This record gives sequence, C-alpha cells and structure tokens, in this order.
Amino acid sequence: MEREIKVLENIGKANDLIAEENRKLLDEYGVSAFNLMGSPGSGKTSLLEASLADLGKNHRIAVVEGDLATSYDAERIERLGIDVLQINTGGMCHLEAASISKALNHFDLNEVDLLFVENVGNLVCPAFFNIGAHRNVIVISAPEGDDKPVKYPVMFMNADALVVNKLDLIPYLDVNLDRIRQDALKINNKLNIIEVSCKTREGIESWIGWLKSQIEESKRSE
Amino acid sequence: MEREIKVLENIGKANDLIAEENRKLLDEYGVSAFNLMGSPGSGKTSLLEASLADLGKNHRIAVVEGDLATSYDAERIERLGIDVLQINTGGMCHLEAASISKALNHFDLNEVDLLFVENVGNLVCPAFFNIGAHRNVIVISAPEGDDKPVKYPVMFMNADALVVNKLDLIPYLDVNLDRIRQDALKINNKLNIIEVSCKTREGIESWIGWLKSQIEESKRSE
Repeated sequence: MEREIKVLENIGKANDLIAEENRKLLDEYGVSAFNLMGSPGSGKTSLLEASLADLGKNHRIAVVEGDLATSYDAERIERLGIDVLQINTGGMCHLEAASISKALNHFDLNEVDLLFVENVGNLVCPAFFNIGAHRNVIVISAPEGDDKPVKYPVMFMNADALVVNKLDLIPYLDVNLDRIRQDALKINNKLNIIEVSCKTREGIESWIGWLKSQIEESKRSE
Repeated sequence: MEREIKVLENIGKANDLIAEENRKLLDEYGVSAFNLMGSPGSGKTSLLEASLADLGKNHRIAVVEGDLATSYDAERIERLGIDVLQINTGGMCHLEAASISKALNHFDLNEVDLLFVENVGNLVCPAFFNIGAHRNVIVISAPEGDDKPVKYPVMFMNADALVVNKLDLIPYLDVNLDRIRQDALKINNKLNIIEVSCKTREGIESWIGWLKSQIEESKRSE
C-alpha cells in the first residue's frame, strides 16, 4: 500500500511540473486558460455554447474537449465555428497536464487569446490534476441536489468559480440554493458563485462578466 | 509510464482477488449483494429510500454507503431503521474490494440476506473495481442528458441493470429516453433498463421486481 501511494505521489509531482510548463507557454503567448470541471451532464458544454458567441466578438477562442469516448462535445463546439480539439481518454477519469501539453502543440497559440478546457465529467478526480490553467471552474446543476459541496469537497477547495446551472428546473426540485452557496463558501470562501440557466440564459451575463474580469487579471499577473 | 501502468494493473489484480473472497463470504452466508453506481446526484440514495421499506418485509437488509466525506447518506438510510455502515474514502473516487471486505466484518452476516453498496458518486472509476457484489447497477438521471451511455461506456459494459431516474422531470427537459435505451443496449445487450421516478414512485415496482428476481437467481447459482 505504501508503495502504491508513493507511485501515485510521483505521478502527481510529474504532472505538476508539466502543468507549470503549460502555464509558462500560455503566458508567453498571452492565452488565458480556464479548466471546466463537473459531473457528467452538469452542463459544461452547454455553458460554453451559451457564452462563446459573445466572447468570440473580442477574443480568439480555442477549446479542448476531454471525454472517455466520442467526439460529440467537440462537434457541438465546432458548429459555433470555434477551433476545438477532442481528447479521448480511453477509460481515464480526468485530463492530465501531459494531455494539455500535447493539445497546446496542436493549436497555433499566436492565434488564440482564450482557451477553455472541458474536463472529463467527474466531480472527484480532475480536482487532483493541475493542468496549468489560470482558473478552475466547477459546474454543478440544480437537479444534482444541494449536498454536493459537502459530499465532494476536494473539487470545491481548488476552484475559483462555481457555476450552478439549470436554474430553470428549480420550481420542480427540492433544492435549497442557499445551502449550496453557504456550504461551498465554508469550504472555499474565495469561490465566485454564479447561478445560471443555459436554457433560458438567466445569469449568463454574470458568467461572461466574471470570465472577462479574470482574463484581465490573468493578463496583469503575467 | 510503463511502470505506472504495471503498478495499476497489479492494484487491479489484488483488488480482484479480494473481490473473489468477498463473494465467497457473501455466498457462504447466503447474502445477495448489489453494487449501486452512478454520477453524484443521480439518485442512488433516493432509490434505496424508495425501495427498502418494501424489501424489508421479506429480507434482512444491510447497506454500505461510500462517500468522499460526510455521513449524510448513511443518516438517510438509518432513519428507515436499516443497519448501515458509512465508509468515507477521504479523496478516493471509488470503493475497492478491500473496503467492502472490512465492511463485511462489521456486519453480523448471519442476520443479513441482502446487502446494498452505494458506491462513490462517479460515472467512471467505480466501473474498474470489482467489489464482489452479485449484481452491478448503474443509476443515471434524466436531467443528465441522453448522451451518457455513449460518453461513459465502460460503466455500462460491466453492469446488469440501468436505472434511469427522475422521470418526473421529463416534461421540462430535452431528453430522448429512446436514445438512452438504444445506446445502452448497443454497449451491453444484457442490460435490464428500468425507468423510475423516486419522487412519484413511478416504476419503483419494476425496480423491486427486478431486485427480487435477481435475489432468487443469485441464490440458485451459489
């Protein structure tokens, strides 16, 4: 068991080194990168679909889609005319810095200002793998219930923003949004919480506003 | 990288051996065991809540709850007067056979006919870890969308039943249940698909009926 833990620690360290290199490369080219994480079906792709047209007016965008199988999500992004790369992990439950390093080679970074990485749908494992993005975003959806922050705390500890999606379903659910907010802030009081419905576009302006503020900040800190 | 894969393979083999021992022990005591897997918030605990009272009339039930943190799910089961053990995995994304082996020591198996293991909320990793249960059940929920089988196929390959929960939300969703059925059966044509709403109890009788048939079968095959 000790040997197993040691090996996993070494994998973690190797990953962190590659993540640092990714960050350096992104900064060199002035690319702001966001890592979107969350459960399957929380609405990560829908959130991108709802915001890329607006962001695309002032930014040149690239997207990396991480999935176990299929290129369905990449096809959804491609339909918006956005440059997208699909990574199929086989069975792997998260994206690693090494996959993102390869993805960065795929794009002409001179032509990119803004990179979104949609991680594998999983509220646990992606939190353990720094990929070098400037900001980490969790997407949860109202129908998942209001106990997600306390039950999956690791993901919330390492995030910059929490997007709570599918507000439109609230009338049909027994979900307390206040509980989500309070529990999430107890775990991480720097978390920006943004409530949206990708379907009705409620809250999408706030999400885009937050993204724009973070793009500015990440440029200033280079 | 090769070394890493080798280590993970060895972990997998060690896990399988313990899973076999778990199964032997369960069979020795005539306990039928079900492993419930699915995304966070798909309704695994709700499905147990909806069915344990009925099953409890003819079976002595024990439940193992797997979570990263908190004992909220165990408390929900305890309120029904059911013997329950909470396993907190720390950060680990799945239950392993070794955790279940310890759990089996916790219960007096002479007093148990039926064991439910609620795995960590995760549509990826638990599929790779046999715990020794007689049947594997996936719970997905309608609001997660109809692309889950094709995007997370590994979980579906190794399962005996697929429960599609939250049917009550269908009128408010753009979800095609036929697509879920067809895609899931393409991956695994032995999958029993049961559609339910834990809220309205629609389909719960079918779920209980399936469980009872499997309890009979698992007893016959001992």
